Amino acid sequence: MTKGTFYGVGTGPGDPQLVTRRAWSLIESAQVIAYPAPDSGESFARSIVAEAIPDEAVEIPMVVPMRSGRAPAQSIYDRGAADIAAHLDAGRDVVVLCEGDPLFYGSFMYLLVRLRDEYPVEIVPGVNSLSACAAAQAHPLVARSDILTVLPGTLDDAALGEAIDSADAVAIMKIGRHMPRLRALVSARGLAGKALYTSHASLSHQQVLRLEDAPDDAPYFSMILIYKGDDPWIS
Amino acid sequence: MTKGTFYGVGTGPGDPQLVTRRAWSLIESAQVIAYPAPDSGESFARSIVAEAIPDEAVEIPMVVPMRSGRAPAQSIYDRGAADIAAHLDAGRDVVVLCEGDPLFYGSFMYLLVRLRDEYPVEIVPGVNSLSACAAAQAHPLVARSDILTVLPGTLDDAALGEAIDSADAVAIMKIGRHMPRLRALVSARGLAGKALYTSHASLSHQQVLRLEDAPDDAPYFSMILIYKGDDPWIS
Repeated sequence: MTKGTFYGVGTGPGDPQLVTRRAWSLIESAQVIAYPAPDSGESFARSIVAEAIPDEAVEIPMVVPMRSGRAPAQSIYDRGAADIAAHLDAGRDVVVLCEGDPLFYGSFMYLLVRLRDEYPVEIVPGVNSLSACAAAQAHPLVARSDILTVLPGTLDDAALGEAIDSADAVAIMKIGRHMPRLRALVSARGLAGKALYTSHASLSHQQVLRLEDAPDDAPYFSMILIYKGDDPWIS
Repeated sequence: MTKGTFYGVGTGPGDPQLVTRRAWSLIESAQVIAYPAPDSGESFARSIVAEAIPDEAVEIPMVVPMRSGRAPAQSIYDRGAADIAAHLDAGRDVVVLCEGDPLFYGSFMYLLVRLRDEYPVEIVPGVNSLSACAAAQAHPLVARSDILTVLPGTLDDAALGEAIDSADAVAIMKIGRHMPRLRALVSARGLAGKALYTSHASLSHQQVLRLEDAPDDAPYFSMILIYKGDDPWIS
């Protein structure tokens, strides 16, 4: 029997309209759909594409306890990969939904490493959070010969400071409760006026704020973008 | 009269299926479409979405001479912005097509700076080249607490070397004739085995090669991705 194909599909930042045509049509015709889900409540990745999911599709929610700074137990992915593999072995394609882009700071890799050697794989890239936040701000992300550095806000001050100092443009992700510390780091460098904060890019409750106005306890889906140029739009 | 809206629309990396639903529907209903075009030949951005462009749409090709390492003459964007503004003033929306993502190393900013203060603006993010190349490789881009740095290959050796040394993951763009120098820089750091080259991601002539097998004169639409981890897929 021909094995099914393992699809890693980016759903983009949240607006169902920002899903690619390829992702949408794969989901519309999917027999089996897997996705990460929180301990309680709805899967964000699933919610983005809910209207495309066929009623008759088999769904595999992978419940991943969200605790900042800790890698989820690998046993969750062992189980998820085994569930997926059973469908692939039976010749059924499996679509794994990934918020944003599958390979940009996501958990999809934990499944991919377990399945890539045994099954045909196709990755469908999605609009990642960098592009989504820059679009929300209608502000520069990066241009010309700029160096862009993407930093998790969970790093220590020394690592963050060094990276901020050596780039022309900086994106800080995974902010959460680190916001006061991150704001102090950016402000100490005289860059607060060049930093914009975005949360929930592309969703109805999207916020774009100056860094100084951003909340101390930022949501997981938020980002700080810094562009150091005076007016980067003018060459 | 109500002014038209100025849309900056990402067309993604090249496969028409990797255009977002929002971008596709905006193009299908567009009255006026503008896009960058080379001195001779077809506009790449236009070619990606050609089948969605209405026959009756007014098209504004902005011919931008492509010379590596030089910013195009600003007069081209002055003219383009004036042409676009005339439609916006007449109440017609204008869709500007941008390869990849509008704010990720693109020329869209040159129009945005000229029009953003006078007209309603909406940016529709697209799948950028980072996500497209990682998907083509089905290989890590960046994960967990990694630092990702994006570098134009046009920078000098010192700047490139310092940036490569201080990141966990590196994307080198704008490769072209700089390939031999870039390959030497990466190899000298013992990272050649962790570097993959991709050109024309998502198109039928897409190539994914080990860095050592990549051509000396790489096309403009190519990228080197380096992931330093031993097996980044395993936590």
